[in-house]
Amino acid sequence: MRGEGDHSLLKDGLARIQREVDSLFDALLPIPQDTRARLVEGMRYAAIGGGKRVRPLLLVSTAELFGVDRNRALRAGCAVEAIHAYSLIHDDLPCMDDDDLRHGKPTLHKAFDEATAVLAGDSLHALAFEILADQETSADPFTRSELILTLGNASGKDGMAGGQMMDMLAEGEDYDLHTITRLQQLKTGALLAAAVEMGAIMGHVQPEGRAHLRAYARDIGLAFQIADDLLDVEGDADKAGKALRKDESQGKQTFVTLMGVDKAREQARALVDQAIGHLAVHGEDAAMLRAVARYIVERDR
Amino acid sequence: MRGEGDHSLLKDGLARIQREVDSLFDALLPIPQDTRARLVEGMRYAAIGGGKRVRPLLLVSTAELFGVDRNRALRAGCAVEAIHAYSLIHDDLPCMDDDDLRHGKPTLHKAFDEATAVLAGDSLHALAFEILADQETSADPFTRSELILTLGNASGKDGMAGGQMMDMLAEGEDYDLHTITRLQQLKTGALLAAAVEMGAIMGHVQPEGRAHLRAYARDIGLAFQIADDLLDVEGDADKAGKALRKDESQGKQTFVTLMGVDKAREQARALVDQAIGHLAVHGEDAAMLRAVARYIVERDR
Repeated sequence: MRGEGDHSLLKDGLARIQREVDSLFDALLPIPQDTRARLVEGMRYAAIGGGKRVRPLLLVSTAELFGVDRNRALRAGCAVEAIHAYSLIHDDLPCMDDDDLRHGKPTLHKAFDEATAVLAGDSLHALAFEILADQETSADPFTRSELILTLGNASGKDGMAGGQMMDMLAEGEDYDLHTITRLQQLKTGALLAAAVEMGAIMGHVQPEGRAHLRAYARDIGLAFQIADDLLDVEGDADKAGKALRKDESQGKQTFVTLMGVDKAREQARALVDQAIGHLAVHGEDAAMLRAVARYIVERDR
Repeated sequence: MRGEGDHSLLKDGLARIQREVDSLFDALLPIPQDTRARLVEGMRYAAIGGGKRVRPLLLVSTAELFGVDRNRALRAGCAVEAIHAYSLIHDDLPCMDDDDLRHGKPTLHKAFDEATAVLAGDSLHALAFEILADQETSADPFTRSELILTLGNASGKDGMAGGQMMDMLAEGEDYDLHTITRLQQLKTGALLAAAVEMGAIMGHVQPEGRAHLRAYARDIGLAFQIADDLLDVEGDADKAGKALRKDESQGKQTFVTLMGVDKAREQARALVDQAIGHLAVHGEDAAMLRAVARYIVERDR
């Protein structure tokens, strides 16, 4: 199924979205002429020049299926990425996962300090909703409001933060596969799914017309997390740009501990095939979304 | 100017809004049947049963001037209060102000733990925007979007979080009165002003028709902070329900250190008179907003 064309499509797509996201964050985060400068420098440190930008790529590629203006879709993509960036800052804090390395450089609280990390995370969190509520993202206020509701639900107690809470308690609990799946759907899946959903919302696709995209997003979300668990066991920390082998040392259950390496890899690939199947209706237009699905299980970071 | 009627108006107004805010947070935060329970319990601990609820009272009282349905205004008031509550949780963290007591009970990270405090703060932050983006808050999507833009701006780098960053750096800097005013306008004033502004937005008042309300909000915001600085010097920690005399021990400049106690008190009162002057156009309808303005400098917590 996969050829050279597919590979270069994805490579170019990632390179382009990485440039675009960096450039938009640069424009959105001018450094103020007072002591807030440190805060905005912290936000820029976390938001610019790091990360694969999978979420913005998913959002922009979905929006493209429905002819949405790329600059507007990019703004919504940066809103999702701002949420992702804030969550990494807070998750890396000493009282959370206590990580020193992220995207191959010191974590924000190491490069700056913990207080700046807390506040820069909070400010990126607010920035996400400021971006979405601005009419430059969509001229239609109903669309703006739907984007915000979708991102809010995906990031709070019923989404990412809820999943992170379950993960923080995982060391003491003997989670089964059902619970691990639920945890990961919240912690990682909800925001990936929101990116796809938001692309469709910008394309004015009604909820009943988004079911296949939601199914695609759910499958790649799960595949993404299984791939992360495999990377944690088999990956190269230099390439990943962060500490690995953490799940094992913390005695946490993961897809890999529960299923074994071979079964987990098989399951991830099956999920990707299934995800790609949901895109059939879009034909060649969905080439990038298919490429992203494959990348998710084949990436080395 | 001030009589018994004014006093009981405020007392009843505060008691009512406190009941209403507690009841709405209770409804918005059901405890889930999985390990996220701890997260939601943390959110409830911080959001229910504490705080003066000045911001919701300001929002609801402003909205009332324009005939807005009280239940809808209350939802927006709870969104502002959710932002306020999350900011207190994060400000109290050991890496920030390191406070053990808030609203007369242990701070969230003391009663639970730091990780839960970070995540409960983040989840209340997201909840604020989830509430505002819901059509139960306003049937008009443009209104919802404007509410979100106003609250987002007031809480991020150009508002509350920016002011908190300036405050964190205050120990090392020799801020003058101009800088302290700017810091406090961001840290405290922006959210109080947003509450008033959001009440007017719900009343479909155009930006040019909100100028006097913005002036009212700016004046009470500054008066509120001067009163806080006076409380820090002269207040009773038991009544305040939190540690006092912190500014002095940290060597921070405040309105009181820069102006002296007498001048500061005089200034706060003058600001309240000025704020009340801006409400003249509303006549008797603005009785509650006038009462709130007076309360702000006369409160003991």
